Amino acid sequence: MIKKPYLLFLGDAHDQLAVKVAKGIRDWRPEDALGQLRLPGCQADLGLPDMTIEEALKAGAQTMIIGVANRGGTISESWKEVMIKALESGLDLASGLHNMMRDDPLLVAAAKKNGRKLIDVRRPKENYPIADGEKRSGKRCLTVGTDCSVGKMYTGMAMDAEMKKRNMKVSFRATGQTGILITGSGIPLDAIPADFMAGAVEWVSPGNDPDHWDLIEGQGSLFHVSFSGVTLALIHGGQPDALVICHEPTRKHMRGLPNFELPTLEAVRDLSLQTAKLANPNCKVVGVAVNTESLNDEEREAYLADVENRMGLPAVDPYLHGAGRIVDELEKI
Amino acid sequence: MIKKPYLLFLGDAHDQLAVKVAKGIRDWRPEDALGQLRLPGCQADLGLPDMTIEEALKAGAQTMIIGVANRGGTISESWKEVMIKALESGLDLASGLHNMMRDDPLLVAAAKKNGRKLIDVRRPKENYPIADGEKRSGKRCLTVGTDCSVGKMYTGMAMDAEMKKRNMKVSFRATGQTGILITGSGIPLDAIPADFMAGAVEWVSPGNDPDHWDLIEGQGSLFHVSFSGVTLALIHGGQPDALVICHEPTRKHMRGLPNFELPTLEAVRDLSLQTAKLANPNCKVVGVAVNTESLNDEEREAYLADVENRMGLPAVDPYLHGAGRIVDELEKI
Repeated sequence: MIKKPYLLFLGDAHDQLAVKVAKGIRDWRPEDALGQLRLPGCQADLGLPDMTIEEALKAGAQTMIIGVANRGGTISESWKEVMIKALESGLDLASGLHNMMRDDPLLVAAAKKNGRKLIDVRRPKENYPIADGEKRSGKRCLTVGTDCSVGKMYTGMAMDAEMKKRNMKVSFRATGQTGILITGSGIPLDAIPADFMAGAVEWVSPGNDPDHWDLIEGQGSLFHVSFSGVTLALIHGGQPDALVICHEPTRKHMRGLPNFELPTLEAVRDLSLQTAKLANPNCKVVGVAVNTESLNDEEREAYLADVENRMGLPAVDPYLHGAGRIVDELEKI
Repeated sequence: MIKKPYLLFLGDAHDQLAVKVAKGIRDWRPEDALGQLRLPGCQADLGLPDMTIEEALKAGAQTMIIGVANRGGTISESWKEVMIKALESGLDLASGLHNMMRDDPLLVAAAKKNGRKLIDVRRPKENYPIADGEKRSGKRCLTVGTDCSVGKMYTGMAMDAEMKKRNMKVSFRATGQTGILITGSGIPLDAIPADFMAGAVEWVSPGNDPDHWDLIEGQGSLFHVSFSGVTLALIHGGQPDALVICHEPTRKHMRGLPNFELPTLEAVRDLSLQTAKLANPNCKVVGVAVNTESLNDEEREAYLADVENRMGLPAVDPYLHGAGRIVDELEKI
């Protein structure tokens, strides 16, 4: 668990894309994002108050999130001075970078000396169990995709926001670095040893109140040969009651695989449901979430209408329209 | 790579089951198994010459294999004296135990002092790549199962023996601890981080001569909720041309999952083929390998005849009958 609220460190980010993690926190947990700390030359701006470490502490900050990624996922030398100062001033540090803070002797020494924590969310902390497949109480919804990076996390976040608005019992269960940093907890599924993947998914979505929903963050795709095994572990470990299919309609081929075409929504629906029913025979597909960022208004409307018609399911862009129509379907389960 | 030939250490094994790893080496790589080393009280006997470390060295041994497992997968104190003596005498040590030799300071010191290797096959040594899904030259056969522990490794080994007899170009590609210790190389798939599973499978079965077969050791089952993701990574990373379905007909429920029934052979065939065709559209199921150990002669004959009839595929117990009829099918591809 990462202590909230946060100061978001944007470093010397060369553009807005480099602060994707910080942007996710601002968009989905604005109450946790007290302010931003930018170094000279920073090209990103989240529109949050610019704060020094002292100001953030005064405002109640508990953790400084490394909300920026540079090429290679390393910790820039230019960031370290500020990171060490944060530790000395009383903040924990949390990072989803590929290079671990705990492998940096200066950061380790500063954390130890000041009794602060270095939280590298990309490394598994628990010894997760082998999945036992036992039916758990409570309800679960999993996002599955035609491909990687089509909006599975954002769809879950939009549903979480809508369900909180309706006072439904809901927990977003993060399974990737960005999701963990946004919500403060979760499992770094891509780094978990193969035998324990499904067990980790069970662990992160434990038994709960009968009317409580876990929104489990999906990863990869059953149709992406590099990561399909991770997706199947989510389906079998998550034993979802509901699936939401996520898609990006302008993608020319599977991400990173130029020789692989995207599957149809129907193929994703059928294989996801077939495999999900092994762990939960009552599983249903409840909606299609489309990332329409690259479509104009007319294209968007036509595309969503066509999907609704073909699939007989609500089709929305949850980032633009909210997830209300998908949550309506969850309320019927 | 583990240097051959081997001295097989059986320790103080309390029964024959405890020396499963050593038995696998004796059964499938008899030319590598120079002898066995048993401690007082050992209840197992592989029928190999009993050897001291000195005798094994004189016979040419390069590595002592820890061919025994006790409950908990630890390294018994009673074994250590012999293990250290082996290192001091000039043998490497290889082990598939859950507890790592490299975490034992005495063994580490002895290995270092004597310039010997401690090979813990359960820990990944490589940084495996992300799978790229590119078509590789050569041919591949993967064993898939209705469940865990139904004979996938033994089936591959029997096919390997038969194909060598026919002078076919063939490599057994181990993906588990026992397979690695038997063949001397491979990948410990169950311990590899989720994102790299399929890439590790690509790595262990690289491009090869057009008439060369890789026999990839299967793991888990698409229908075993604890490990299905590992199986799908094998199917998508292995891009098999041929699948052999493995089964144990007296199993009452999925191994370790009392509430899950075994799938039918037809269900395994259909889902395995459907998923395999994403990576290799020409994939075929070529046979059914049944572990008939628990059937009497009459039951065995009736069971295999029924499977042949239902599936339209050769159905054999490869351990009893050899894998000739399955290899006949590979020769047609």
